[in-house]
Amino acid sequence: MKKTVRICMIGAGRVGKNHSRAITRHIAGARIVAVVESVAQVREETAHEFGIENQFDSLGAALGKVDFEAVVITTPTPTHLPITALAAENKKHVFLEKPMALNLLECDAINEVTSKNSVLLQLGFMRRFDPEFVAAAQRIEAGEIGQPMMIKSNTHGPGLPPPWARDLRTSNGMLAEVNSHDWDTTRWLMGSNYERVYTEVANFKGAANNVDTPNFYDNVLVNIKFESGGLGLISGVCPCGYGYDARAEIIGEKGIMQIGELKGQAVVVCTNRDQGLITPIFRTWPERFEWAYINELEHFVTCIQNDTQPRAGGMDGRWAVAGVLAGTKSFLEERPVRLKEITGD
Amino acid sequence: MKKTVRICMIGAGRVGKNHSRAITRHIAGARIVAVVESVAQVREETAHEFGIENQFDSLGAALGKVDFEAVVITTPTPTHLPITALAAENKKHVFLEKPMALNLLECDAINEVTSKNSVLLQLGFMRRFDPEFVAAAQRIEAGEIGQPMMIKSNTHGPGLPPPWARDLRTSNGMLAEVNSHDWDTTRWLMGSNYERVYTEVANFKGAANNVDTPNFYDNVLVNIKFESGGLGLISGVCPCGYGYDARAEIIGEKGIMQIGELKGQAVVVCTNRDQGLITPIFRTWPERFEWAYINELEHFVTCIQNDTQPRAGGMDGRWAVAGVLAGTKSFLEERPVRLKEITGD
Amino acid sequence: MKKTVRICMIGAGRVGKNHSRAITRHIAGARIVAVVESVAQVREETAHEFGIENQFDSLGAALGKVDFEAVVITTPTPTHLPITALAAENKKHVFLEKPMALNLLECDAINEVTSKNSVLLQLGFMRRFDPEFVAAAQRIEAGEIGQPMMIKSNTHGPGLPPPWARDLRTSNGMLAEVNSHDWDTTRWLMGSNYERVYTEVANFKGAANNVDTPNFYDNVLVNIKFESGGLGLISGVCPCGYGYDARAEIIGEKGIMQIGELKGQAVVVCTNRDQGLITPIFRTWPERFEWAYINELEHFVTCIQNDTQPRAGGMDGRWAVAGVLAGTKSFLEERPVRLKEITGD
Amino acid sequence: MKKTVRICMIGAGRVGKNHSRAITRHIAGARIVAVVESVAQVREETAHEFGIENQFDSLGAALGKVDFEAVVITTPTPTHLPITALAAENKKHVFLEKPMALNLLECDAINEVTSKNSVLLQLGFMRRFDPEFVAAAQRIEAGEIGQPMMIKSNTHGPGLPPPWARDLRTSNGMLAEVNSHDWDTTRWLMGSNYERVYTEVANFKGAANNVDTPNFYDNVLVNIKFESGGLGLISGVCPCGYGYDARAEIIGEKGIMQIGELKGQAVVVCTNRDQGLITPIFRTWPERFEWAYINELEHFVTCIQNDTQPRAGGMDGRWAVAGVLAGTKSFLEERPVRLKEITGD
Repeated sequence: MKKTVRICMIGAGRVGKNHSRAITRHIAGARIVAVVESVAQVREETAHEFGIENQFDSLGAALGKVDFEAVVITTPTPTHLPITALAAENKKHVFLEKPMALNLLECDAINEVTSKNSVLLQLGFMRRFDPEFVAAAQRIEAGEIGQPMMIKSNTHGPGLPPPWARDLRTSNGMLAEVNSHDWDTTRWLMGSNYERVYTEVANFKGAANNVDTPNFYDNVLVNIKFESGGLGLISGVCPCGYGYDARAEIIGEKGIMQIGELKGQAVVVCTNRDQGLITPIFRTWPERFEWAYINELEHFVTCIQNDTQPRAGGMDGRWAVAGVLAGTKSFLEERPVRLKEITGD
Repeated sequence: MKKTVRICMIGAGRVGKNHSRAITRHIAGARIVAVVESVAQVREETAHEFGIENQFDSLGAALGKVDFEAVVITTPTPTHLPITALAAENKKHVFLEKPMALNLLECDAINEVTSKNSVLLQLGFMRRFDPEFVAAAQRIEAGEIGQPMMIKSNTHGPGLPPPWARDLRTSNGMLAEVNSHDWDTTRWLMGSNYERVYTEVANFKGAANNVDTPNFYDNVLVNIKFESGGLGLISGVCPCGYGYDARAEIIGEKGIMQIGELKGQAVVVCTNRDQGLITPIFRTWPERFEWAYINELEHFVTCIQNDTQPRAGGMDGRWAVAGVLAGTKSFLEERPVRLKEITGD
Repeated sequence: MKKTVRICMIGAGRVGKNHSRAITRHIAGARIVAVVESVAQVREETAHEFGIENQFDSLGAALGKVDFEAVVITTPTPTHLPITALAAENKKHVFLEKPMALNLLECDAINEVTSKNSVLLQLGFMRRFDPEFVAAAQRIEAGEIGQPMMIKSNTHGPGLPPPWARDLRTSNGMLAEVNSHDWDTTRWLMGSNYERVYTEVANFKGAANNVDTPNFYDNVLVNIKFESGGLGLISGVCPCGYGYDARAEIIGEKGIMQIGELKGQAVVVCTNRDQGLITPIFRTWPERFEWAYINELEHFVTCIQNDTQPRAGGMDGRWAVAGVLAGTKSFLEERPVRLKEITGD
Repeated sequence: MKKTVRICMIGAGRVGKNHSRAITRHIAGARIVAVVESVAQVREETAHEFGIENQFDSLGAALGKVDFEAVVITTPTPTHLPITALAAENKKHVFLEKPMALNLLECDAINEVTSKNSVLLQLGFMRRFDPEFVAAAQRIEAGEIGQPMMIKSNTHGPGLPPPWARDLRTSNGMLAEVNSHDWDTTRWLMGSNYERVYTEVANFKGAANNVDTPNFYDNVLVNIKFESGGLGLISGVCPCGYGYDARAEIIGEKGIMQIGELKGQAVVVCTNRDQGLITPIFRTWPERFEWAYINELEHFVTCIQNDTQPRAGGMDGRWAVAGVLAGTKSFLEERPVRLKEITGD
């Protein structure tokens, strides 16, 4: 049996709870030995729910008090660099939620500090571990649909993001906080980097939701030209109300592939022929990607046990941030933006 | 251009109207020149709606007054033999709705009188003309799923049949009036005749629907052993309320085939994630089998024009009636019934 | 009974044959009395197949020889204006295939000549007559999904368009010849005109298909901003090989609606568990939109009989052409293009 | 944290491995401390794969050597009573695979010995723990489709059962070894016991599979009358080849409910429009019921930790065996069989 990996969970909000549940219930090889969270009530609830013995209000407070090999960072984006740096300098492996950071300088710093300290860095792109997306990627790689020509990827989420995550002054907005996965998925499945992006946004529900931050949008469509010559589309709607909707469609030279569907559980009911059939929809991201979360965390644990590099790493995180920055610049300046304007390459 | 086939529509109820619509709107090679219906108001409505120039209250009254080559008989089952006989003796080709008749003697008489007078006889088994069932039958015939081992066929209808059609004293009940199509479909797709049947029935809604006729049932399951050794299931629910539901599933030595689905139009909506996706269901038989009705009537017209035998003929009608009689005897006597008890072969 | 509408079919290629079949088999109120086609063999085949009595090699030749009230024009786009003008000046009602014309001047001329001569003009936007699209439009209109925020519409066709239709020197290319329907559908269902468009194109199969015309593309994504503030996407792939794929997805303030699906007939087969379920796909546009073609032509005939205006008219045709011109200018100039640059409003 | 439950896994074949994987990977509250298996190679493989420290060739050998609170019994049906008795007398809680036993005397003995020794007994009816079946059951219970009138449940498995499991001299054949789940599911979802059953069987592939045991069948249809007046159907095909197919359909007074589907992963591909869409099917039972197995074993562990009664107990196991015996008698004697002939009530 491999040695149990001891984990310090940093952040105990929705994502922190989700990951704590996955680790506690489904990953025999890992144990959460401490939870770090600045809000006392949230921290205590999470510790109690998942039987975590040690609680701290900062990573600094935990270091030296409890032994652990790794951290799982689920706090807001602006905190990613300082927490990662502290963890890495203390030789802790890092599982870091998306988006990686606010800008490329921070991404570079994160990559450098983890590399310099020889700790592993895995980004929370769980779609790379979803059984359906994984099977699809393998089949594309095997040439089943030929050279990819066009990809469409969407993430439509039911509720309004929190204030910091929808304000361009404190985050990169919905394109980053909701659609990071689409940036990563399109690049991964197309097997090519973005060359140019053009973005249109719309604000339909801001007023009704009392959102008056500048440049707020709740609908976005990004048109992508890849270096391979292929085309891409990212679509975001948040809040969409109707469910958690994450699907992708790829057209290759030989055919089409659809990944995911609106439908949730296969329980179909009809009690009124004027209404029609009713089928559950995926309501939330923890439902839709339950196995993906278990698998990505198990992958992280296994990489630590075997000292191998994780599949979703720092350069993937950096590319997603670069896409977000280009996409944002595009709608602010109402023009297509080349990635090299962002990366300076 | 082929000569236009002149048709006398007999019966102007729901089926008569459905067939009148199909012929008038979609069959360029035929024209309804007369409608026969004993209820004056129904007759006049139908004549007006479909622009039929001549109206009569009986076939006898129409003969000699208007020229036509064929009749389409949509009146209740007990009238099938006398009307068919009168038509045939006057050299009119006959399209006859299912079920063919109340018993095998009547079936034999119908087959004899049409044969003796050299007129065509087609039974209203429209599933044999539905594009999906036709494609399925061809693929089974081509060996795609191997030798059929098991078939399930269901017809669940939304509303309560009329009194004569649910009373065993005036008809053969739901097994005949609703499930005739399943008797024909299972025999057709299995490529074998029934050898033995066993039937269970249930009465769940009779009281609520004020039905107190003896032996009334609104749910039925028939277990069939075919001469080929294969197994079959017929399922009937009427009134089921939730829609018009007609599907079949066949398992052969090499695989499975499903024909039809609950879903109607491909328009999927979700406005409430706690409710889920809503998709239209087939509400009625005219919706579900719109093309099948057009195609079967066009086939009849083409057979007349080309003097060829229709695909769904008198022996198919007779086998379905034999199945109904065996299935009914089975639940009345609570035992399996062999077809030869009915056919006397 | 309404008076039968006599029609002259102009063009006997794939679309001409499709419309001839729909009229001949399914529209009792109309008759094709003449076919106009310059290629003798094609003309004779079509006349023979559909029993059309008169043949001509030009509309001019037909006029005065045969009586008819209407023309159905299915010839290539550059011929639309001269043929429409000749028909209108001879007081024939006009059913005109999409795209309406090559530019807005031609659209204006078509609208003017039909108006001045008081003949009806219907554009061949058959999706407006497809039962699923019609039901969807009514439900959107009724407010079921709230104010539309985003629409995606795609047309992916199996085969390479003919040379004239894929060359920007002789047509407006795939955006016009294949995606005209999407331009009309998005504008119709959003209930708003386009304000700005941005287009990316790709050429993946040109070389393999020996296409060396300048600016050829076989993949296109158009990002649309509507006057309402809503967003739109048009996606085109031609040749896609895998089938005929036309679907739409609309997200409104209250929910999502999907129209159409990849799946064709509901006949599902599995004979190999390593391969999985196999379901027919729509192979061609005549299959996918069979009812839409019947319904649009029946609508045209009914409008003539009742002297009412058709639902898909000249201004709809003009808007689609304007969109195509803006979309094409966008990818040629690599920038977003406002519609007013095209319309000069 | 609850005390970890120590488990002895008895039987290391396909089911034993499946349950070992579920416990080892996904149940934090339990640990397999020993594996019992008479075939040395199988035992060693399983111990190695799942890191089980102790191995024995019989339960007797394990007792006293290793401490554990519970056994999971996955050995062939004829061994169920003696192993359960030995475990219970040594105060071990028992998780017992289906079918419970060969006859009702054995069922009674199992119920008695576990009850007398105050140990928990859970039957391996994992469908009662499948998220879709559980949701369906709750919705039926809540009255969503009204009083259940008819249920259809099928289990079609890809491969030929082992010799002992298809021979009526050593087991109760396919009705027991494959369709036990359907017996339990129909009774559970109908909320009623069986009153009468009628069975037809067929043998299509026996010869090709070199099976010459008397009364062998590979297709079965059971027609059930429930005490509630409702109707039921159990369908079994084994080997069916095409996949692992387990679905249920229930019709209540208010509507229909379908549980499960043929389709596996939501990855749809089309590369050939003449072939159509290809979608994965469930290939095996561990795939189809992955969560159900995790959940049933977690339930067992939780019941032990909390000293509560498991949801699928000894009386459920006994009823399924009674159904199997009645169903088998029915086809052997070619007549409907009342359950009271079997239970002697």
